[in-house]
Amino acid sequence: MVTQTEFSLRSRNRGFHIITDEIIAHLPQLPEAGLLHLFMKHTSAALTINENADPDVQTDLALIFDKLIQEGEPFYSHTLEGNDDMPAHAKSSMIGATLTIPITNGRLNLGIWQGIYLCEFRLRGKNRKVVATIIS
Amino acid sequence: MVTQTEFSLRSRNRGFHIITDEIIAHLPQLPEAGLLHLFMKHTSAALTINENADPDVQTDLALIFDKLIQEGEPFYSHTLEGNDDMPAHAKSSMIGATLTIPITNGRLNLGIWQGIYLCEFRLRGKNRKVVATIIS
Amino acid sequence: MVTQTEFSLRSRNRGFHIITDEIIAHLPQLPEAGLLHLFMKHTSAALTINENADPDVQTDLALIFDKLIQEGEPFYSHTLEGNDDMPAHAKSSMIGATLTIPITNGRLNLGIWQGIYLCEFRLRGKNRKVVATIIS
Repeated sequence: MVTQTEFSLRSRNRGFHIITDEIIAHLPQLPEAGLLHLFMKHTSAALTINENADPDVQTDLALIFDKLIQEGEPFYSHTLEGNDDMPAHAKSSMIGATLTIPITNGRLNLGIWQGIYLCEFRLRGKNRKVVATIIS
Repeated sequence: MVTQTEFSLRSRNRGFHIITDEIIAHLPQLPEAGLLHLFMKHTSAALTINENADPDVQTDLALIFDKLIQEGEPFYSHTLEGNDDMPAHAKSSMIGATLTIPITNGRLNLGIWQGIYLCEFRLRGKNRKVVATIIS
Repeated sequence: MVTQTEFSLRSRNRGFHIITDEIIAHLPQLPEAGLLHLFMKHTSAALTINENADPDVQTDLALIFDKLIQEGEPFYSHTLEGNDDMPAHAKSSMIGATLTIPITNGRLNLGIWQGIYLCEFRLRGKNRKVVATIIS
């Protein structure tokens, strides 16, 4: 069976943000077993799973990816939308704008240290539309 | 229900290429709601979602990933298949050779700025085999 | 139909390891057609697909990602769990802790050069829990 819903995550500034609770609040009742597929309809943000305990992980992740793909590279051609735009596109493909999570016993079957992250790569992110598809 | 088809994308040279229309042309009629899973049967190319409007994004993405993972690093051991081969394998794992996209109202539910990309990392790419699985 | 099982991969040291056979040994009989979704319940390791032939690919991949995201960066705040920990989290999001593979004719439909990799980013990895979900 397929259940599908579309919603917007509230806007956030650039950074790695844990959104597990916000995602769950948007979902219908989960089946006993299945998959949750999340798809962000944007190309300058990403979804991932990472550590949910120490907030320093979020800060460090942002710094690591900012160092890897820097703003203002002289070879960028796509510059009209701002210095943060082209790096945002690259990071989005590097981390990925989709995520699939198993559902077990009616709950997301995350590890105890895992949280769902919204990686916002624009300085001032907008509301981010997500399509959630549940397969059971 | 599971519907599956296997096809080849036409060969392309190294670069980031938008293939949304070519993918859709290979798919059977889509269900009202579900998921499309794409899987490339190769380890030196990738599939991703990125911006479908400004061709400069494609050029810049290629330059960014070429800068991150460079050819001819002195520590490479896997060099027999050419200078472009080992970086291609690394980029393939970095971006990923699979992609899952929601289907809504009988169509791929992409954001208006999103397109499906083939990331070809070999200088002279071959036909790339893709398995498309539709879950509904 | 959804079939789900949870198991542990045996512990490995840091590196890129081919685990295709170990994964298959943990799976129930596969359906004629469908998807296998693998989800690692950890944030310092990843799953990917890469070349299954030349062991040098595994060595080079480890060196490439170690060079990209280095230990001991002065800007790291999350350092309590060791020098290998924060880079492990970043690599995990870069490569991804989930993987979806098509099932065709009752078998994983991998390309002939493709294998499933466990990317272990901790120096001394522990047993890694995986949730396998089969959709048919």
